[in-house]
Amino acid sequence: MAKDENTVFVGRKGTMAYVLAVITQLNQQNADEVTIKARGKAISRAVDVAEIVRNKFIKGATIDKINISTEEVKTEDGTPLKVSAIEILLKK
Amino acid sequence: MAKDENTVFVGRKGTMAYVLAVITQLNQQNADEVTIKARGKAISRAVDVAEIVRNKFIKGATIDKINISTEEVKTEDGTPLKVSAIEILLKK
Repeated sequence: MAKDENTVFVGRKGTMAYVLAVITQLNQQNADEVTIKARGKAISRAVDVAEIVRNKFIKGATIDKINISTEEVKTEDGTPLKVSAIEILLKK
Repeated sequence: MAKDENTVFVGRKGTMAYVLAVITQLNQQNADEVTIKARGKAISRAVDVAEIVRNKFIKGATIDKINISTEEVKTEDGTPLKVSAIEILLKK
């Protein structure tokens, strides 16, 4: 499992913001992998990010592992809600 | 690779429509696996479908493999567009 410092959480920003974050992470010294995480509707964007990075920017990068899971979050009024989550481990 | 008859394509319908399709598939004779496919924004829904099936309906089901890729589609005016795609292989 990657450490938190090697993780990019994908949320509601534009896709390219996260692409840039992943590239920056992979170009750091001693960083040859990054975990891209997302929940709910951002899952599609996380897949876009991984695909754009490996197809356009870091050609040697491969998808090492993909996990999906269910997490429980609290909504604004405090009721629990289950959301799907994804983790994509990208290696260069 | 699963045959097409063992594939559920997730699109714009409600999540439970696809959950039902996957369960029906897995309950057929000689069907111990199903591939859930989706593109673009439907990717999040495909992950929801896999998670709901294995957590709520078919307890022994496991996620055998997840692939992500990039596909080229044509928009309504004929220009090519790249979209991300996911394939989730669910086994019981």
